[in-house]
Amino acid sequence: MTTVATRRPRALLAMDPAVSARLLDAGALARLTALADLDPALVVDDFAAPEARAALEQAEVVITGWGCPPLDEAVLDAAPRLRAVIHAAGSVKHHVTDACWERGLQVTSAAWANALPVAEYTVAAVLFANKRVLALREEYRRRRAPHDWLGGHPAAGNYRRTVGVVGASRIGRRVLELLRPYDLRLLLHDPYLEPGEAERLGASAVGLDELCAASDVVTVHAPELPETRHLVDGRRLALMRDGATLVNTSRGSLIDQEALTAELVSGRLDAVLDVTVPEVLPADSPLYDLPNVLLTPHVAGSLAGELHRLADAAADELDRYARGLPFAHAVSPEGIHRSA
Amino acid sequence: MTTVATRRPRALLAMDPAVSARLLDAGALARLTALADLDPALVVDDFAAPEARAALEQAEVVITGWGCPPLDEAVLDAAPRLRAVIHAAGSVKHHVTDACWERGLQVTSAAWANALPVAEYTVAAVLFANKRVLALREEYRRRRAPHDWLGGHPAAGNYRRTVGVVGASRIGRRVLELLRPYDLRLLLHDPYLEPGEAERLGASAVGLDELCAASDVVTVHAPELPETRHLVDGRRLALMRDGATLVNTSRGSLIDQEALTAELVSGRLDAVLDVTVPEVLPADSPLYDLPNVLLTPHVAGSLAGELHRLADAAADELDRYARGLPFAHAVSPEGIHRSA
Repeated sequence: MTTVATRRPRALLAMDPAVSARLLDAGALARLTALADLDPALVVDDFAAPEARAALEQAEVVITGWGCPPLDEAVLDAAPRLRAVIHAAGSVKHHVTDACWERGLQVTSAAWANALPVAEYTVAAVLFANKRVLALREEYRRRRAPHDWLGGHPAAGNYRRTVGVVGASRIGRRVLELLRPYDLRLLLHDPYLEPGEAERLGASAVGLDELCAASDVVTVHAPELPETRHLVDGRRLALMRDGATLVNTSRGSLIDQEALTAELVSGRLDAVLDVTVPEVLPADSPLYDLPNVLLTPHVAGSLAGELHRLADAAADELDRYARGLPFAHAVSPEGIHRSA
Repeated sequence: MTTVATRRPRALLAMDPAVSARLLDAGALARLTALADLDPALVVDDFAAPEARAALEQAEVVITGWGCPPLDEAVLDAAPRLRAVIHAAGSVKHHVTDACWERGLQVTSAAWANALPVAEYTVAAVLFANKRVLALREEYRRRRAPHDWLGGHPAAGNYRRTVGVVGASRIGRRVLELLRPYDLRLLLHDPYLEPGEAERLGASAVGLDELCAASDVVTVHAPELPETRHLVDGRRLALMRDGATLVNTSRGSLIDQEALTAELVSGRLDAVLDVTVPEVLPADSPLYDLPNVLLTPHVAGSLAGELHRLADAAADELDRYARGLPFAHAVSPEGIHRSA
């Protein structure tokens, strides 16, 4: 991987130490310290602390993670050599301030890597939903006798079914990519799609009402913004087909949860929900026990072993920086305002 | 799709009428009758019946499905013009007899199409198992309070995990193909692998003991044969890692179910089981209720809407036959003896 041009820049880890303990195993730390002059024992979550200020003074690169404090004017003033921010997580909007862009810092994030687990969770949810796997498990538990299991569901399965993806986000695009090898019709709704873009992603661009009405599974991958609150409201839920499944791995606020709960309690719709309002749900929420709801506690994103992918992504970008190459996944100030 | 060479051969439907009612919807029958001179109202499950004998006398092609009686010497004697058998299902071994091969009949089956739903079920099972989705659902139901959900499972997720595929069958190969876009290490065991074949499938060839010991998910796609009975026996189950998942969508006899049940009751292993011995399980089987077991009633194969894929596959082969082309998925007598 090395070339003659490789340097070994001074770097600093800045994130919640509880995060770094899980994110950076011995292998990841060994790779980072081989690529950069970096104290693996120093993980900064307060840039005003004396050892943080000393490291910041020298740092050319800051490797950030969840819990990194904002890199504001005052922090940047204390970091005269800083050239690059490598974020070993998704969104940089909580710590990369306007001051970073004004100083021309190079910024990269592992948002692409962070999108993968959510897309993978979604793919499994779609395949199982179309096939009615969890419903069949419940019914087999109940009957314990031979039965024509899909007699009442002549369309069940993953052939000629329609999956509607709401949001051409990183995750939405990856879901489309991963669903391509299956015999599914893919619909996509996103107000920012360019002409022909949905088709290039293997999908058909449709309005959100049409998507809700035509899909066997509707899966939401839009950002949480004021204008996406209750994007899937009671009226759109009512448009969904009897027996259709709503998958939400984005944020609870995008769905009218009261209207959804009514549709789920009645049994007309199924749902796979990794996010809700609030998280954690109240103990008496019917969503916990409904057999037609797969409810998980906001775990679809990068967790546990998947944190290693974020660390690997950060190390790959550090390697590129050290070799004088541009980041593979550079973040621009224009790019971050539309996303979650 | 048509060319000048297209003929319209005489054809006959032969299968259980209950199967044809689900397999052949109006669209499929319209396509078949456009391609062949075929009575869509005649579905034969007894070749000795008078209307069956009359149709057999003229038929050049027989389109078969589940419940087709054996095409034995007597049937073939009554079918002097028969040239081809197009099977709209998987294995032909129950109805394509040695006499068919001796007469040089062309045979095709939709076994490739029949493999897809099983592979798709498996992919979803693998992704959810590595991510502990169903376990997290149960734990969230139980706790209903904030928790460090994966604190005790630092490797959870679909990154750097190992999936062991037992059997380079059609289904096993499709599972490997569908798992390729994920960041998983893929192992493959099959006694009939040629050198380099596993690598061409994106996997590493290993012995079965090594596969069991190294995999986070072991998924079984081997045929049911005398020599595969209890292929995964108690010793091999004991080799599996704590917290690993066994997926079985092949046949129950391939696993020592008593030994597996003990591992599942203890909670050491998880399982996704679409097949068992017997099917249906006795009502007091612990497999129904264990939270670490996803048990389904032998539904992973082509059912409901997925039957349309088999019908489409048969129509595609009929189209090729009518245009004088060889079958895309020809079956040879040598090929059928090793498979399920």
